[in-house]
Order: sequence, then structure tokens, then C-alpha cells
Amino acid sequence: MNVEELKSVIRDVPDFPKQGIVFKDITTLLKSPVHFCQCVDYLTSHFQNFDFDFVLGPEARGFVFGAPVSYKLEKGYILVRKAGKLPAKTRKVTYSLEYGEDSLFVHEDAITKGTRVVIIDDLLATGGTVSAMTQLVEDMGGIIAGIGFVVELKFLEGRKKLKGYDIYSLIQYD
Amino acid sequence: MNVEELKSVIRDVPDFPKQGIVFKDITTLLKSPVHFCQCVDYLTSHFQNFDFDFVLGPEARGFVFGAPVSYKLEKGYILVRKAGKLPAKTRKVTYSLEYGEDSLFVHEDAITKGTRVVIIDDLLATGGTVSAMTQLVEDMGGIIAGIGFVVELKFLEGRKKLKGYDIYSLIQYD
Repeated sequence: MNVEELKSVIRDVPDFPKQGIVFKDITTLLKSPVHFCQCVDYLTSHFQNFDFDFVLGPEARGFVFGAPVSYKLEKGYILVRKAGKLPAKTRKVTYSLEYGEDSLFVHEDAITKGTRVVIIDDLLATGGTVSAMTQLVEDMGGIIAGIGFVVELKFLEGRKKLKGYDIYSLIQYD
Repeated sequence: MNVEELKSVIRDVPDFPKQGIVFKDITTLLKSPVHFCQCVDYLTSHFQNFDFDFVLGPEARGFVFGAPVSYKLEKGYILVRKAGKLPAKTRKVTYSLEYGEDSLFVHEDAITKGTRVVIIDDLLATGGTVSAMTQLVEDMGGIIAGIGFVVELKFLEGRKKLKGYDIYSLIQYD
């Protein structure tokens, strides 16, 4: 894989979402069919021999990579959503943000004891979101077979929150 | 295509998002690999000979079908998002809801004069969201090559807001 080439189609947007942050914008990568397909193919190759039942991922950018990986590997896809979005009975996890907290939800019947999932998300930053998802899945009796990201911001040390998991990222920024 | 079989994996959730509405829940379809893949494959077959540059779709459920279609057809994917989500300079469209209004955004450089897009979304209900997206694309000089939905609630007559467009839906409820 040519990581530098993938990096070349990711756009740096300064001061988003706030002053001093340089946001890694993957919308420019998504517009390039070759690079978007490469990302999905690399994730797919990595996880194809894993033993799991479902791909799982958070709205909204997580869906953009998780759903194609799910399709390509012929696995079901489980949506993790914000408050008020899932229609049936849900389980919830609440996690800390820099200021305040947020919650994520999954349908209560989506995961049962022994359900094996691979989590796919676009970005590993501080690891707060994905760590919350692992807790949600495990609280319901599920098993995390692996976790995949398109981009990892290594300087934020998100992996420290994810010890013991099998983690894969395509593109790293030191 | 066996529409009845696809319908059998869509769950009816009464009184969501509010009293008296029966919500068509596609999370149960997504969990079934065969049916999820069928939906993507039917959408893909329908649009594969269309002349277009990008698949475009709205967060969040639109991404779940739009991104795999984009991947399978080897087209770039353009995200349409809610306020505050896209990092670079955006164009906006505001549209009416039952009570009040909402807005959708796309990156200003995502669409230029003559850009041909296929819109993919999960649901055609009253047509408000998709009609807003067609306006957004056309205001930027883009061309709607076609529009695809997984589910169409025909009794809400969303097609009336979309006259003149090439519209395809997989599953219809009368």
C-alpha cells in the first residue's frame, strides 16, 4: 500500500472544528474512486480471515467505510447511533468528551452473548468513541474480534485506551 | 427481485418517531448479509450504465447504501451533511419540515458545472430531503443523472416533489 499517495488526497483544514486543530478531511479522498476503493479493499483484506459475524460502526463517517467493508465481506452491518435515531429498544453507553459527555446507542437485539464484531471507523483520535463502543458491545455479551480505522492520529495516543484489542489503521500521522 | 422477501426483514416499529407513525426499520435488513448485499446489488445494477461522476447522499442512513454503491461502481462519493459537520467551505440549502426548517450542506468544491451525480438514500417519504439535495446540486451547476432509494412510502407521494427525475426504488409500500 502506498500510504503517501493516500495521504496526498486527504485535505488539511486548519482551525476545524476549533482554533489550532488541523482537521484531516477525508471528503477529498472519497471523491477519488481509486483511493476510496483502495481504502475499502485494504480494510477488507485485513479482516477477511477474522472470525466474526458483523461489522459495526458509528454514525456518520463510520458508515462510509463500515458499510462497504460489510458489503464486500458479506457480513451484516450494525449501526451505532446518537440519541433518538434508533427506533426500537436500545442499549446506551455514555462517555466523556473534552467538555461534558456524549452517548451512543445500539439496538438491544443487535448483539447477543457471543456475537463477534469488527468495528470500522474513519478515525482513531483520542479513542473515546471507539472505547465507548467496545464497552457497549462487551456489556451486551459481544466480543470485539478486531478494530479498523482509515486514519490514525498517533500523537493523540488513542491506542492507550484500546489495550488488548487487535487494531489496524491504514494511514498514520505521527 | 423478491420484494416480499426484502420486506420480511424490515421491521415495523409503531409510534416512532412519534405517535401514530409506523417506522420502517432497516437495521434488521442490514444485519442480514444476503439482504443487505441484495439491496446494494440491485441499486448497482440499475445505475451501472448511467452516465455520472459521483454518488451523493445525505447523512446518516444514506451513507449506509450510498457508500457501497459508490464502491461497487467505482465512483467517488460526495457527503451531504447537517450543519457544522463539513470542515471546508460549504454551500447550503434550507428546506421546510412539518414544523420549522432544516438545512443540508455540501463542500463548495465538491460539485462544479456539469458534474453528474446519482443520489442514493435509504428512504423516499415526503421527498423533502431529496428535493433539497437536487436543488443544492443544481444551484451549483451539477446535473442529477438519477435518484435511487431502498424504500419508497408511496402513500406520501414523494415523487410529486421530484418530477422530471429518473427515480428508482427497490421496495414500495402502498
